[in-house]
Amino acid sequence: MPQPIPTLRWEGGVDGHLVLLDQTRLPNEVVELHCRTVEDVWQAIKRLAVRGAPAIGVAAAYGVCLSLNSSGSLPLAGRVGEGVRSGYPALSPLPSPPHQGEGTGGNNIEVVRLACDYLATSRPTAVNLFWALNRMRDVAACGLAPEQLPQALLVEARAIHAEDAAMCTAIGQHGADLLADLPVGTGILTHCNAGALATAGEGTALSVIFELARRGKRPHVWVDETRPLLQGARLTAWELTQRNIDCTLITDSMAAQVMRQGRVQAVITGADRIAANGDSANKIGTYSVAVLAHAHDVPFYIAAPSSTFDPSIATGDQIPIEQRLGDEITCGFGQRTAPEGVNVYNPAFDVTPARLIRAIITERGVIKPGADL
Amino acid sequence: MPQPIPTLRWEGGVDGHLVLLDQTRLPNEVVELHCRTVEDVWQAIKRLAVRGAPAIGVAAAYGVCLSLNSSGSLPLAGRVGEGVRSGYPALSPLPSPPHQGEGTGGNNIEVVRLACDYLATSRPTAVNLFWALNRMRDVAACGLAPEQLPQALLVEARAIHAEDAAMCTAIGQHGADLLADLPVGTGILTHCNAGALATAGEGTALSVIFELARRGKRPHVWVDETRPLLQGARLTAWELTQRNIDCTLITDSMAAQVMRQGRVQAVITGADRIAANGDSANKIGTYSVAVLAHAHDVPFYIAAPSSTFDPSIATGDQIPIEQRLGDEITCGFGQRTAPEGVNVYNPAFDVTPARLIRAIITERGVIKPGADL
Repeated sequence: MPQPIPTLRWEGGVDGHLVLLDQTRLPNEVVELHCRTVEDVWQAIKRLAVRGAPAIGVAAAYGVCLSLNSSGSLPLAGRVGEGVRSGYPALSPLPSPPHQGEGTGGNNIEVVRLACDYLATSRPTAVNLFWALNRMRDVAACGLAPEQLPQALLVEARAIHAEDAAMCTAIGQHGADLLADLPVGTGILTHCNAGALATAGEGTALSVIFELARRGKRPHVWVDETRPLLQGARLTAWELTQRNIDCTLITDSMAAQVMRQGRVQAVITGADRIAANGDSANKIGTYSVAVLAHAHDVPFYIAAPSSTFDPSIATGDQIPIEQRLGDEITCGFGQRTAPEGVNVYNPAFDVTPARLIRAIITERGVIKPGADL
Repeated sequence: MPQPIPTLRWEGGVDGHLVLLDQTRLPNEVVELHCRTVEDVWQAIKRLAVRGAPAIGVAAAYGVCLSLNSSGSLPLAGRVGEGVRSGYPALSPLPSPPHQGEGTGGNNIEVVRLACDYLATSRPTAVNLFWALNRMRDVAACGLAPEQLPQALLVEARAIHAEDAAMCTAIGQHGADLLADLPVGTGILTHCNAGALATAGEGTALSVIFELARRGKRPHVWVDETRPLLQGARLTAWELTQRNIDCTLITDSMAAQVMRQGRVQAVITGADRIAANGDSANKIGTYSVAVLAHAHDVPFYIAAPSSTFDPSIATGDQIPIEQRLGDEITCGFGQRTAPEGVNVYNPAFDVTPARLIRAIITERGVIKPGADL
C-alpha cells in the first residue's frame, strides 16, 4: 500500500508550488504543507518537515523554481528574518524577485543564484542538497532566453524528481540481489528513516527491504527509534506498518542486544554524504550501529544514490556535521525531560568509517570496500 | 549540595511509614510519596517511583515492616487487585494482618513471610531486592517473642539502610583509588542512574565520580539519556547539576561518537545482578556501551555492592530479564511517537559479559576480571 500522500509533489505548472507531507506531524497526523516561496522551502528543510538526503535535494530544486514564480514576490527579506528570530544563523536577505514577465535575463539568473545560495544554507551535511542546487544553477547559467528560464528550471526539477524515484527502484533491485542468499524471515536492522519519506521514490535502505518483501523473503525489520527526533519510531515504523512489513520497534540502546541474540542478519542504513574514501555520514547513531554490527559479525550496508558521493572530500573527517539545538534532546516529547540549564551535545550526524561498511548499494550497482569509489 | 529530599526515609517509630522521593516526577517536580502499606511499596517499586538495585532493597525491607504495622490493616486484597488491573501479573492477595498487639507470633511470622513473597514479585532482575527480603525473613524466623518482632524488623531495615549508605561511601573510595591516575578533567561516561537516587547513600557509579570531584579531579561526565525512561536525563543529569559536577547530556546513540572523539577515558555503570562468573545485568543499553567502550579501548567498570552478586547463578544467561510494556517506548512522555499497533521489544535490562568488564568496584574492594568472584 503506498503512503496516502506523496512525500513531495509539484502542484500546477510553471507558476505552481511545492506540496510536502509534513513529516514533523507523523505518525499522528497526515498533513500537507504548501510551500509558495523559497523561504517556505528553506524553513521546511531546516525544521525537518522534509528530510532525508535525496528528498532534500528534490525539495530544494523545486524551491529554486519558486524564486522566479509570481508568488515569490512575497516580502522575502522579512521571511528570512523569521529564520533569524528562530535562532538560526543570520542570512543576507534575498532581493525581492522581479514580477513574472518584467525581469531581465540577467536579473533572473542572479535571483536563481541567490536562491540557490540561500537554500544551500538550510542544512550543511547532506551533499545531495548541493548537488541538486548545482544542477539548477547550471540551468540558469546555460544562456536561455529570460522567458524560457522558469520553464527550464521546472523541467530540471521534475527531472531530478523523476530520477530520484528511478534511483530508488534501482537501489532496491541491486540491494535485493546482493542479499539474495539471506533466508526467508531474515532480520534486518535499520536506523533513522531511509524510506519513501526520505526520497521521491520507495527509499534507499527501505527500498531494498520492500524489494526483498516482493521477492517473498518476508524480512523482519528491527527499527531503531533514532533519538532525538525519533525518525525510526515516527517514520520508518509508519512506512513499514503501512506496507505490512513485519517490524519491531526498539530503542537505539537495544540494537546491541538484538544483535547478540542473533536476530539481525544485516544492517542497512542510508547516507547523507560519502567521502572519496567511502567514509559515510548518516544520522547520529549510525556509527554506533556500525561498530556494534562489526562486533557481532553482522554485515553493515549503506544504500544511497550516487549523488550522495562527494569526491571533493577525501575522508569523513572533512564532512561538516550539523549541530542542532539541545532542546531536541531535553524537551523532545512535549515536556521537559532533563534539568534546566544542563549542557547538551546534539550533532545531527556521525561518520562511519569505510572499514566498517561491507558494501554501498547505489543505483548504478554495489560498491565493495576497497574498490575505487 | 545534597539533594533536597532523601531518596528514602522512614518516618516515625515502629508504627511509622516509608517516605520516598517520587523519581517518576523528577526533574520537574520534587514530590514525596508516603507508603503506608506493603502494597504501596510494591506499586512504588513496580512503577519505578523508587528504582536502582540498592534502593529497591532498602525500600522493600521497610515495606516488610509495614506488614505488621497498624496502618497495614488497610484492605490489602483490594489493593493487590489494583496491580492486577494495571496489567501486572495476578498475585495471591495478602491476608489482612492482625491489628497491632493482637497477633500471635506464628501469625506474624506468616504475615512477614507473605509480605516478603509479595514484595519479591515487584521486579525480577535486581538481586538486592531478594537479598534484603531474605534478611527480613531471617529476622522473622529467629524465634523472637511476638511483641518484639515489629521492632526487630525495623532495626534490621534501618541496618540495611545504614549499611547501604556506608557501602556507597566505600565504593566511592575504592573507585577513586582505582582511577587515581586519570588526569584532571577526565571524561567519564555513565548510563542510567547509579547515584544517590539509586541508593540510600551517594550512589555506586556516581559515588566514584563524587569522590573524584572531592579529590580535585574535576571529572566531566557524559550522561547517556537512557531510553526509554530517561533515567540519565531526568535523574543523573539532575544529581550532577545539583552537585555542580560538569556534565553533558547525550542520546544513547551518541556514546560511540564521543568515545571516537577521545572524550571518554572511562565508563562506569551500576549493576542489578552479577552472576558467579562476573556477567552483569544492568539497565538496557549497558551492554551496548560496554561493546562500544571495548571497541574504542576505553575501560568499562561496574560499581555495585556485594549484595548485587548472585553466586547461585553461574552465568548471565540465567539472569531473569524483566520485560516491560511497549508504551514506555511508543508513548513515553505524554504523546504518541510511533504508529498504533506497532510491535515493540522492551527489555528493562541486558547482560554485559565479564570479558568486557575491566573491574567491578565493590564496598569491599575492586575485583579484577579473572579473579575469583
